[in-house]
Amino acid sequence: MIPPHDLIDFLQTSDNFLISTHVSPDGDGIGSSIALSMMLKSLGKKNTLFCKDPIPYQYLFLPGSTDFLSLTSYIKSNHKTENLILIDCNGIKRLGIESIELPQFKFSKIAVIDHHEINKSFGDIKWIDPEAPATGLMIYYLIKHLGVKITSEMATNLYTTISFDTGNFRYENTTSDVFRVAADLTDLGAKPHIIYSSLFEKWTSNRFELLLAVMNTLELVDGIALGTITREMFTKTMTTEDDTESFVSFIRILDEVVVSAIIIEIDYNFYRVSLRSKKGINVAEIATSFGGGGHRNAAGFRIKADLEILKKNLRDRIKASLS
Amino acid sequence: MIPPHDLIDFLQTSDNFLISTHVSPDGDGIGSSIALSMMLKSLGKKNTLFCKDPIPYQYLFLPGSTDFLSLTSYIKSNHKTENLILIDCNGIKRLGIESIELPQFKFSKIAVIDHHEINKSFGDIKWIDPEAPATGLMIYYLIKHLGVKITSEMATNLYTTISFDTGNFRYENTTSDVFRVAADLTDLGAKPHIIYSSLFEKWTSNRFELLLAVMNTLELVDGIALGTITREMFTKTMTTEDDTESFVSFIRILDEVVVSAIIIEIDYNFYRVSLRSKKGINVAEIATSFGGGGHRNAAGFRIKADLEILKKNLRDRIKASLS
Repeated sequence: MIPPHDLIDFLQTSDNFLISTHVSPDGDGIGSSIALSMMLKSLGKKNTLFCKDPIPYQYLFLPGSTDFLSLTSYIKSNHKTENLILIDCNGIKRLGIESIELPQFKFSKIAVIDHHEINKSFGDIKWIDPEAPATGLMIYYLIKHLGVKITSEMATNLYTTISFDTGNFRYENTTSDVFRVAADLTDLGAKPHIIYSSLFEKWTSNRFELLLAVMNTLELVDGIALGTITREMFTKTMTTEDDTESFVSFIRILDEVVVSAIIIEIDYNFYRVSLRSKKGINVAEIATSFGGGGHRNAAGFRIKADLEILKKNLRDRIKASLS
Repeated sequence: MIPPHDLIDFLQTSDNFLISTHVSPDGDGIGSSIALSMMLKSLGKKNTLFCKDPIPYQYLFLPGSTDFLSLTSYIKSNHKTENLILIDCNGIKRLGIESIELPQFKFSKIAVIDHHEINKSFGDIKWIDPEAPATGLMIYYLIKHLGVKITSEMATNLYTTISFDTGNFRYENTTSDVFRVAADLTDLGAKPHIIYSSLFEKWTSNRFELLLAVMNTLELVDGIALGTITREMFTKTMTTEDDTESFVSFIRILDEVVVSAIIIEIDYNFYRVSLRSKKGINVAEIATSFGGGGHRNAAGFRIKADLEILKKNLRDRIKASLS
């Protein structure tokens, strides 16, 4: 994994960066952004971390996680940022910003570092590698390439990106390279069991109750598992959408399940759907056909629909992929 | 991790081995035994795999897993075995054999390869390393030391031992060495996502129902979580004790839980208790005080008792460890 020359050149010759990851930020986007920010600082480069959405509580153990500015605080701050680096996404819309009309969002150059498949081209400098198991792995090689020392704080952030995007070494993207980098990051100060526990074992009993409630809604037919979370269930268990992370992956433990989906009621007749697959089924294609996107094994979309019609259409669309 | 000279000498100069792992065999015991057997075969040494209990279905994907002889088939077979190697355990009782009175269980020499803490000394040749994350890691270094080529089949078995005993890289025993060996085994042919899926994602819907039923019994007070499985629950969900593997680990996701226990009704007023801990609490000590044993973070015991009294005593004993 070798970073392109124009990216290296851009980072070495420019200054005043805005580093932003996508809305609904996850372990890969957050950890990658922070590690990149730390690296740039150690090169003497000014930079600001930005995320439109708040950082979910399970990532607040990460060194640097409280440095992200929200949209309001960024605009208020009048930070001088000349260059934008998009992390773990490749379009301005994924930042949750409708347009870049605001003077604060006018940039000299825009760079993109990502491992999602793309349709459209965006940005002046692009390093997009859909083969990379995590954007964080790309950042690791970028830091190595630039000869910057990986501190224990960077190692913790980078290890988190790998743990998150490989499902803690369980998905198909768990290569020997992933293990070798994990070994190096562990030697550099990342603590695997503490990071695992922080990411995946900080459940509140309310969240646990919500999981049990969802599992009780599971409809399992022909290798397709559909679970539903209604707003009423959120109210009853005093939980929010943030608490549903990894619910859909949990269903993977069932042998007969090839595709699992969790349908989350966000608003009246408005749903967010998370999809996961085993055995090579491409759920990114399924999500795209509903206006969403993602990876081969993990994808999603948002849709205005009637729940029963959505379920039927989704089941039909998945069936078509299985046959 | 360097194997002792007397073990190397024993393996190189002897022949006709019986390789046995403990009753209720697990991923570490099974994978270690098979990899050792394959290595001895490639050195031209005759050997027989033995386990008193049947190999659970989730391990039948392992190359060599059908080669284990049961007690009956071993006695019938009249295998000529001169030497015994105990794997992942260190006493004859853990083999499920009450005594070694039978002529088939008289050996010239007994070797022990294990990573459990011991009180008593057993065997003529001992390699016991409680620091080793898995017995399989010891076997890996043993094979390396003997200069035997690790085949793809050995790699799959050895990777399984590591994945199983580190909770797929989530427990405190996940060292950089573990990752480096995992990288090597992946290069040698182990498939992490397939092994993970085989070990942890082959649940039947009956087993899933049992998990939901147990989770509904969960009593969570003062950081201690107790779940109970009655024989009635097994009957209702058409499951057996084998289906309960990893249930107790599942409770770890709850942040407030420091010690979790699953109490399984085996017979009338007879229970098996599995314990897991976080944050350094030593559950091996707790299990020992009830006549059982195990590791610091994972232990268990069997006991004749009234359920409510058992729960009270267990809760009191755990509380004493927490204070």
